[in-house]
Amino acid sequence: MSRGSSSGYDRHITVFSPEGRLYQVEYAFKAVKAPGITSIAVRGKDSVCAVTQKKVPDKLIDPTSVSHMFRLSENHGCVSTGVITDAKAQVQRSRKEAAEFKFDYAYEVPVDYLAKRIADRNQVYTQHAYMRPLGVAMMLIGMDEERGPQLFKCDPAGYFIGYHACAAGQKDQEAVNYLEKKLKDAPTSELSEADTIQMAIASLQAVIATDFKARDIEVAVVSAKRPKFTVLSDEDVETHLTVLSEKD
Amino acid sequence: MSRGSSSGYDRHITVFSPEGRLYQVEYAFKAVKAPGITSIAVRGKDSVCAVTQKKVPDKLIDPTSVSHMFRLSENHGCVSTGVITDAKAQVQRSRKEAAEFKFDYAYEVPVDYLAKRIADRNQVYTQHAYMRPLGVAMMLIGMDEERGPQLFKCDPAGYFIGYHACAAGQKDQEAVNYLEKKLKDAPTSELSEADTIQMAIASLQAVIATDFKARDIEVAVVSAKRPKFTVLSDEDVETHLTVLSEKD
Amino acid sequence: MSRGSSSGYDRHITVFSPEGRLYQVEYAFKAVKAPGITSIAVRGKDSVCAVTQKKVPDKLIDPTSVSHMFRLSENHGCVSTGVITDAKAQVQRSRKEAAEFKFDYAYEVPVDYLAKRIADRNQVYTQHAYMRPLGVAMMLIGMDEERGPQLFKCDPAGYFIGYHACAAGQKDQEAVNYLEKKLKDAPTSELSEADTIQMAIASLQAVIATDFKARDIEVAVVSAKRPKFTVLSDEDVETHLTVLSEKD
Amino acid sequence: MSRGSSSGYDRHITVFSPEGRLYQVEYAFKAVKAPGITSIAVRGKDSVCAVTQKKVPDKLIDPTSVSHMFRLSENHGCVSTGVITDAKAQVQRSRKEAAEFKFDYAYEVPVDYLAKRIADRNQVYTQHAYMRPLGVAMMLIGMDEERGPQLFKCDPAGYFIGYHACAAGQKDQEAVNYLEKKLKDAPTSELSEADTIQMAIASLQAVIATDFKARDIEVAVVSAKRPKFTVLSDEDVETHLTVLSEKD
Amino acid sequence: MSRGSSSGYDRHITVFSPEGRLYQVEYAFKAVKAPGITSIAVRGKDSVCAVTQKKVPDKLIDPTSVSHMFRLSENHGCVSTGVITDAKAQVQRSRKEAAEFKFDYAYEVPVDYLAKRIADRNQVYTQHAYMRPLGVAMMLIGMDEERGPQLFKCDPAGYFIGYHACAAGQKDQEAVNYLEKKLKDAPTSELSEADTIQMAIASLQAVIATDFKARDIEVAVVSAKRPKFTVLSDEDVETHLTVLSEKD
Amino acid sequence: MSRGSSSGYDRHITVFSPEGRLYQVEYAFKAVKAPGITSIAVRGKDSVCAVTQKKVPDKLIDPTSVSHMFRLSENHGCVSTGVITDAKAQVQRSRKEAAEFKFDYAYEVPVDYLAKRIADRNQVYTQHAYMRPLGVAMMLIGMDEERGPQLFKCDPAGYFIGYHACAAGQKDQEAVNYLEKKLKDAPTSELSEADTIQMAIASLQAVIATDFKARDIEVAVVSAKRPKFTVLSDEDVETHLTVLSEKD
Amino acid sequence: MSRGSSSGYDRHITVFSPEGRLYQVEYAFKAVKAPGITSIAVRGKDSVCAVTQKKVPDKLIDPTSVSHMFRLSENHGCVSTGVITDAKAQVQRSRKEAAEFKFDYAYEVPVDYLAKRIADRNQVYTQHAYMRPLGVAMMLIGMDEERGPQLFKCDPAGYFIGYHACAAGQKDQEAVNYLEKKLKDAPTSELSEADTIQMAIASLQAVIATDFKARDIEVAVVSAKRPKFTVLSDEDVETHLTVLSEKD
Repeated sequence: MSRGSSSGYDRHITVFSPEGRLYQVEYAFKAVKAPGITSIAVRGKDSVCAVTQKKVPDKLIDPTSVSHMFRLSENHGCVSTGVITDAKAQVQRSRKEAAEFKFDYAYEVPVDYLAKRIADRNQVYTQHAYMRPLGVAMMLIGMDEERGPQLFKCDPAGYFIGYHACAAGQKDQEAVNYLEKKLKDAPTSELSEADTIQMAIASLQAVIATDFKARDIEVAVVSAKRPKFTVLSDEDVETHLTVLSEKD
Repeated sequence: MSRGSSSGYDRHITVFSPEGRLYQVEYAFKAVKAPGITSIAVRGKDSVCAVTQKKVPDKLIDPTSVSHMFRLSENHGCVSTGVITDAKAQVQRSRKEAAEFKFDYAYEVPVDYLAKRIADRNQVYTQHAYMRPLGVAMMLIGMDEERGPQLFKCDPAGYFIGYHACAAGQKDQEAVNYLEKKLKDAPTSELSEADTIQMAIASLQAVIATDFKARDIEVAVVSAKRPKFTVLSDEDVETHLTVLSEKD
Repeated sequence: MSRGSSSGYDRHITVFSPEGRLYQVEYAFKAVKAPGITSIAVRGKDSVCAVTQKKVPDKLIDPTSVSHMFRLSENHGCVSTGVITDAKAQVQRSRKEAAEFKFDYAYEVPVDYLAKRIADRNQVYTQHAYMRPLGVAMMLIGMDEERGPQLFKCDPAGYFIGYHACAAGQKDQEAVNYLEKKLKDAPTSELSEADTIQMAIASLQAVIATDFKARDIEVAVVSAKRPKFTVLSDEDVETHLTVLSEKD
Repeated sequence: MSRGSSSGYDRHITVFSPEGRLYQVEYAFKAVKAPGITSIAVRGKDSVCAVTQKKVPDKLIDPTSVSHMFRLSENHGCVSTGVITDAKAQVQRSRKEAAEFKFDYAYEVPVDYLAKRIADRNQVYTQHAYMRPLGVAMMLIGMDEERGPQLFKCDPAGYFIGYHACAAGQKDQEAVNYLEKKLKDAPTSELSEADTIQMAIASLQAVIATDFKARDIEVAVVSAKRPKFTVLSDEDVETHLTVLSEKD
Repeated sequence: MSRGSSSGYDRHITVFSPEGRLYQVEYAFKAVKAPGITSIAVRGKDSVCAVTQKKVPDKLIDPTSVSHMFRLSENHGCVSTGVITDAKAQVQRSRKEAAEFKFDYAYEVPVDYLAKRIADRNQVYTQHAYMRPLGVAMMLIGMDEERGPQLFKCDPAGYFIGYHACAAGQKDQEAVNYLEKKLKDAPTSELSEADTIQMAIASLQAVIATDFKARDIEVAVVSAKRPKFTVLSDEDVETHLTVLSEKD
Repeated sequence: MSRGSSSGYDRHITVFSPEGRLYQVEYAFKAVKAPGITSIAVRGKDSVCAVTQKKVPDKLIDPTSVSHMFRLSENHGCVSTGVITDAKAQVQRSRKEAAEFKFDYAYEVPVDYLAKRIADRNQVYTQHAYMRPLGVAMMLIGMDEERGPQLFKCDPAGYFIGYHACAAGQKDQEAVNYLEKKLKDAPTSELSEADTIQMAIASLQAVIATDFKARDIEVAVVSAKRPKFTVLSDEDVETHLTVLSEKD
Repeated sequence: MSRGSSSGYDRHITVFSPEGRLYQVEYAFKAVKAPGITSIAVRGKDSVCAVTQKKVPDKLIDPTSVSHMFRLSENHGCVSTGVITDAKAQVQRSRKEAAEFKFDYAYEVPVDYLAKRIADRNQVYTQHAYMRPLGVAMMLIGMDEERGPQLFKCDPAGYFIGYHACAAGQKDQEAVNYLEKKLKDAPTSELSEADTIQMAIASLQAVIATDFKARDIEVAVVSAKRPKFTVLSDEDVETHLTVLSEKD
């Protein structure tokens, strides 16, 4: 995308370029990659797991307060990649919506409904003149009563889609390539919970090309056994990392 | 459309060029073609069918969540071509309107009413300063109690029109040419449901110049026999594809 | 109108040029001619008739859904020339107004009242900053209880005026010249309904310099005999065309 | 007014130039002259008369619907010069105000009150950012119960003023010169109704340098004898024209 | 004030220049002088008088409707200098305020309160983005029950101040110089009503360097003897002019 | 601050420069100095005094109406330096607030509360897009029931701070230097009321380098003895000036 | 960040640069460092302490009114670094929120809730068009009933995070380096209240490379012993400084 070709069509959100492009939305996708974090999520037989890098810029930070994992309702949650403050604003509204849904209808909001609402709000930011699009990709995970484990990704353009496995952030393309190769032989629909978690971690490890310590990543999981959105403890993560290193 | 001739008249929606053109609306038409998808719809004797390409960018995506087919009310639906997130915003509002119509008047909203409302909203976006036009073309299909099968296309300029057969997206012109030739001898008003579906699929196949697998396309149909908006299962699509390949 | 002389005064609606011109309004007049359609209306002794070209871009289109003729109330209607989507927005509001008028005052809205309201709204769009003018000319026809047949034209500047006969669109000037010559000897006030219709069709035929088929034109008429706004059937149009061709 | 000296101060209404000028208001005065029409009004002893050119662009126009004469209340009216659509918008609001005044206070609105309200609205358009000034000059005529015949002119700057006689439009300066010379010997306060009307017509005839036919001008009069705002019939106008031609 | 040094800081009201100047406000002061009118007011022992030039552009104007003298309440009034339409807008609001004050508090609004309110409104126009400052200076005169004769001047910057004598408009500086010289020997606080009026007229005459006729000036006065705001009749003005010419 | 380095970041209030500066706020500080007035305030043991220059531009002005001293509540007041009209707008709102506070809580508003409110409003003007910052510095003085004499300065950036002594306007830096030197030996907390007043006057005299007459300055004082905000009479000021001149 | 690469993307808040950056937010971070102040906070075993430089620009200022320490609720408070007026606006709203929280829920607002709210508001300022981001970093300290001492930092981007120790302002990076080195051996979780305070002071001293006097710094502390937000008296600070100097 050379500067020359944008010619000012990228200064306003509500203006198409002559090729029918919305530059500001494309730049928002860049903002998703800007922090240099990659996230991966995998949907197994009866579980769904999200993994993301946890970079604590300095040791003074209380690591418990640095997280890209957000519970949205009792059972559903998400991992955000990109502008963390934009993510928090979305999370804030989604939690409110989930609570209101439960209050109104007396059952928990389905995860696809939440994904749809997040995407809807993002679309609005691409069409109105007075706000910028949000520079964040969000992967929602949760168990649906009828359809089992669910995985959705919402992007800055206002698009949301279901996945067997997906990735976001700096090395998303490498992650997708890796996952596609890996899952050709082992379809995600046959993965047990442990396999699902390890598949997610292993993929991120492969893409980042480093051996993780438990503190380097965040792992969230929802499964038939534990239907609530759970961020794994460092011990649990360590266990999975050990299994992985032994596999090699 | 050379850059030179637009001279800044294309930066604002609410400004005509000296030739009386609205550049932003023209660019929105470009946005309809940008994703490289072509859609075709055909209206038969007592059925109407819409077909579109289904491109699942990678194998990790849950193909059931990628769709350009949207039910708008129990009996009517549409296929969208262009900016998918803009389409979803339109679908969202149309569904609400359809539900309210039914609640208010106790019968289902006619499909031409829905098409008119979508077009009306699109027109507004071409006239007001604070939003961009929507970069999406929508083809609505449904059965009208009195007039039988109905097919309408709504475009970014706010225009909607009825068709015997129509196309949208990257190769819309090629599709129109193909359909015109084909339908000269076999007027659509004589097509049975199966013929209608196969005519739509065959046309798309001819224009894209490829032999489809069931997973490559989406087919939606409404007919006298099945008056509800139905997206065909892969098996049903396969059956039609087989018939078509045997015809050759 | 050379580009040089507009110098930016044409980028904003609410700004006069040093010569006291409103460029955006002038460009909207250009938009009326852009689609290449010409319309003609003639007011007879006890009838008024509007004719416009009907160009169905391709044979796939359901010709019944392509129309520039719009009923506004039970007895009045109009033919629009220019940006069809702008026309529809105006029609939509005018119908609502006509219905409310009838509900409030228990008699049908007079056609000049409707013309005035359309013109008023157009004027507003030339004065406010947040919307563009509408690129459409509308010719309203109807019977007035006291004054007999009525013909008004509303333009993008917000002007409306009564006519014996008028034209709009690409060849409006040629049409006016033709009509003036023609009507010098045969004042419109002496034309019977059939003569009125044939005068309108013949004029359009002369200006476009082609022999129409019934499907090439739309003809709407209101008369003492049929006081409701009526768009003639293809058979009726054909009859008039035959009479005309026999006259030659 | 060279372009060089305006330097962008003429693109925004709410911005003074370094010389303390409001260019947009000056351009609106140009818009008053743009249509090439001149109007003249004369206040006699117990009557007041307004005359303007009536140019019917083509013979197809119903001349009764082309008018710059507007009744504002039962007894008062005005002649507008300049952008006719802006005039109509002002007339619309003034009529509403006149009706409300009568309803509220049970007597007819005084003509100077109407003139003041029109001027007030015009002033607002010179001060706010979101609308352009109105490109129209309006001359109001009416009988005041106590002060007799009244003549006011309201201009785009929001100024209104009383006159013995006044002019607006393309040749306003020539008309003023002519009237001043003419009225030196025959003060308006001694003119009978017929003299007043003939003075107004003769002045316009002198300035335009042509012999009018009745259909070339519009003449409105309010007098002690006929206190209602009256636009003279063609016959009455003809009579006055005959008297004038016999005087020569 | 060279153009070079303003560098665009004068296009927006709400923007300071690097020197802390508000150019638009300075240009509004220019607008006060633009019409070429000078006004003078003098406060005597028990009277206060305002004089301004009355230029009737042509003889057709009803001189009674050309005035820069405005009564604001029963006892107070003002003379405006600058953009007359801006003055009228201010007068309109001030009169309303004066009436409401009287209604609310059952005594007449003090003249300094009115001056303060006018100044307040002017200040707002220098700070908000959506309106321009008013190009008018207003000198208010009135009798205060306790403090006797009062004279205030309100300027476009929103400043108001009390004066023994003051001037506004094209030759304000010359007038101030003249008055200062004149009043060194004869303090205003010793001037009788007639002396006050004659001092004001004489000063204006000296500054404009012409011998006025009664119709060339407007003279307003409020005094202990006539506490109501009074614009002197031409006869009264003539009388004072005669006294002055005899003094010479 | 060279023009080159601001590069357009100074045209909008709501935009930081790359160095994190808000140019418009810096220019507002320039506006405080523009009128060429210097003010000084000193807080003594049980009194606090503010002094400012009083420049009456010409002798025609009623000197009692030229003042930078404003009572805000019964006991508190302020001296403003900079754009006087902006000061008056602030004073207006502060007085209203003080009155409402008293009405709501039945005791007088504390002076620090008033200072805080003024500062809050100023901050808002530095952050919002639609208004400019106020070009005025205000020094508030008053007695606090518990903390004794109080002196606060509020600046255009929205900052307010307590002082032993402070200065604002053209020669504020010279005044601060002088006061610092002077107060090293004689801490303000030991100054009697007379000493406080004389310290303030003497400092201003030293900085301006001129011998004041009573009419050249304004002196306001609040003290234990006279807890109400008092602007000293010319006689009182003269007395202090005499003491000072005798000290020399 | 060279000027060249920003190319106008830094003039509007709501516009991403092609690299996905929000320049205005980055400039707001610069504004945090602009005043040249550094702040440090350290969280101990059962206490948390914040220290910042106190620069009183001149001796005339009442030092008690210069403070970057703000109590937000009874038990929580914060130290601000950057644009002090922006900080005060945030503090104002936070105090209101804390009071309302207590009123609504009958217990004190948790400190992390306050931090979250401040961050939320900051995020909004990065997304909307009509305000600039706030140029201030705020470190909140408080005791949580369950989790003990808490330390959060909120930045202009709308981010908030928990820390063992953190820094903000001109030398924040040097402070972080120093603290990391220092805390490697002595984890903050083992620091007593006195140690915590001294660690914070010593770090600031090391980074600024100067020996502080009590008046040069502000120290705020919340601990198990004194759960209320307390700004230490100069005597207390002196005591700690003495201990530190004896340690050397």
